Amino acid sequence: MRVALTIEYDGTNYCGWQVQPNGVTVQQVIEDCYFSATGERIKLVASGRTDSGVHAKGQVAHFDTALCQPAHSFMHVLNAILPNDIKIVNAKQVADDFNARYSAKRKTYTYSCYCSGVESPLLARYAVRLNEGLDMVAVQNATSCFVGEHDFSAFCATNTAVKTTVRTIFDFSVQQMGNRLVFSICGNGFLYNMVRIVVGAVLAVGYGKATIGDVETALKTGKRHCLFKTMPPNGLCLDSVEYGC
Amino acid sequence: MRVALTIEYDGTNYCGWQVQPNGVTVQQVIEDCYFSATGERIKLVASGRTDSGVHAKGQVAHFDTALCQPAHSFMHVLNAILPNDIKIVNAKQVADDFNARYSAKRKTYTYSCYCSGVESPLLARYAVRLNEGLDMVAVQNATSCFVGEHDFSAFCATNTAVKTTVRTIFDFSVQQMGNRLVFSICGNGFLYNMVRIVVGAVLAVGYGKATIGDVETALKTGKRHCLFKTMPPNGLCLDSVEYGC
Repeated sequence: MRVALTIEYDGTNYCGWQVQPNGVTVQQVIEDCYFSATGERIKLVASGRTDSGVHAKGQVAHFDTALCQPAHSFMHVLNAILPNDIKIVNAKQVADDFNARYSAKRKTYTYSCYCSGVESPLLARYAVRLNEGLDMVAVQNATSCFVGEHDFSAFCATNTAVKTTVRTIFDFSVQQMGNRLVFSICGNGFLYNMVRIVVGAVLAVGYGKATIGDVETALKTGKRHCLFKTMPPNGLCLDSVEYGC
Repeated sequence: MRVALTIEYDGTNYCGWQVQPNGVTVQQVIEDCYFSATGERIKLVASGRTDSGVHAKGQVAHFDTALCQPAHSFMHVLNAILPNDIKIVNAKQVADDFNARYSAKRKTYTYSCYCSGVESPLLARYAVRLNEGLDMVAVQNATSCFVGEHDFSAFCATNTAVKTTVRTIFDFSVQQMGNRLVFSICGNGFLYNMVRIVVGAVLAVGYGKATIGDVETALKTGKRHCLFKTMPPNGLCLDSVEYGC
C-alpha cells in the first residue's frame, strides 16, 4: 500500500528535508520514528527538498508499506513520537502510481518579511527583517514580471543540475499587514533556491537598487543581476503541494 | 538620568522576567549585557514580572544611569550584544519620578490559540492548541463578564500576596482568523496568573463545560470553579504598557 503524508515542520533545527551524512534532517527523523513505532523500514519520497532552516506547512511525501492498517492511523502513530517541531497533519492511501515528487502539479511557497529598524524576537524565527523605505508599488510591479512561463536560469543556485530551467509561475502576490509582508508564489515547480532569489530580486526593485528592466533582462538572458541576492532560509515556507485530483 | 526601555522577547528559553537563583531570566540577561557594554551595574524595574515561557512585545523597564550619553544610544549598545530572543525596541529618557511598575496606567496582554486536531509545529511556539467545537458566541459572551471593576480573587494563583485583588478590565476582545484565536485583554493591572486563568474560564464556557453563571458566581464569591484552568504560558504575550504620558 502506498501512503501519502502531509507534513508540517519548523525547519530551524534541521539540515533541511533530505537525509544526509552530516546533520539531522526532517526525512531522517520521520523515517526513524516510523521504524521505532512499527519495526518497518521505509523510504520517504517528498514533493521536493527543502533547505536547511526552511519551514513547511504542507510538505507531501509518500512511502510504501507492507503493514495492514488504515493509512490514517500512521498519522497518530507517528505524531505520538515525533518531536514537537515535526507533525503529520494528514495521512491517506494513494494509488500505487502516485509519486509525491513527479505527480505534483502546483506548489505554493510563502516568503515572510517585516520592515523594522530592529530585529524582532517574536517574528525572527519565521520572517526576515527588511529596512524601511520599501516602495510597495515597485514590489508589486516586479512580482508581475515573473508570472507566466520563463527560463529561470538566472534565478537558481549556480550548482543546479536539471534537464530544463523553464518553469511556469501561476501566481505571485504580496500581502501587507502593518509592517509585515508575505509573498505567496505558486508554480509548476521551482529550481534550487529559486524562491529566495526571486524574492531577493523583487526587493532589489522595491528598494530602487534595480529596475523592472533588470528583472526582464535577467529572465531573457539567463544572467543574474549582482543585486538579486538569495534571501535567508527562515522566511521561506513550503505552503502546499497540489496534485492532479 | 532615568531611562525607560521597551523590550521585546521570546520567553521560551527563559525562567521568566525576574532575576532568580535557579535559571536564566530576561532581566538578568539585559543587566549582564548592559554591564558588559558599559561597565556600569544597573537594576531594571519592569512594569511587572512575566512568568517562565511568557513572551513580551512591549515590556517596559526603567533604570538609573550615571553615564552621560543620549538615552536612545542604550538601545543600539544593548542590541549589539543581546541574544536574538531579546531586543530593545525603544529607549528614552524619562522623569526621575517615572516608575515602570507604579506609573503604569494600562496593560494589554494577548493570548493566542488555534483550533486543530493536531499540534502545529509552526504555531506551537506562540499559541496553544485547542480542540475543535468551540462556541464562539459563548466565548464572546464570557469575555464581556470580565469587563469593568471586579474582585479577581477567584482568578489568580493561590499564592498571590497583594493588598487588593480588585482590578479593572477596560477591554476584553477576541479576534478569529481561520482556525486561530487571539484574545486581547486590557486592564489597569493583573494578578499573578490572572490572564491565563481568565482565558481558561472563557474557554470552559466556550466548550459548554461551564456557564456564564459560573463565571459570575466566581467573580462574586471569589471561589474559583474547578474547570477554570490556568492556560499554558506560551500563548501569553505582554503586548503593551501605557503610562499617563
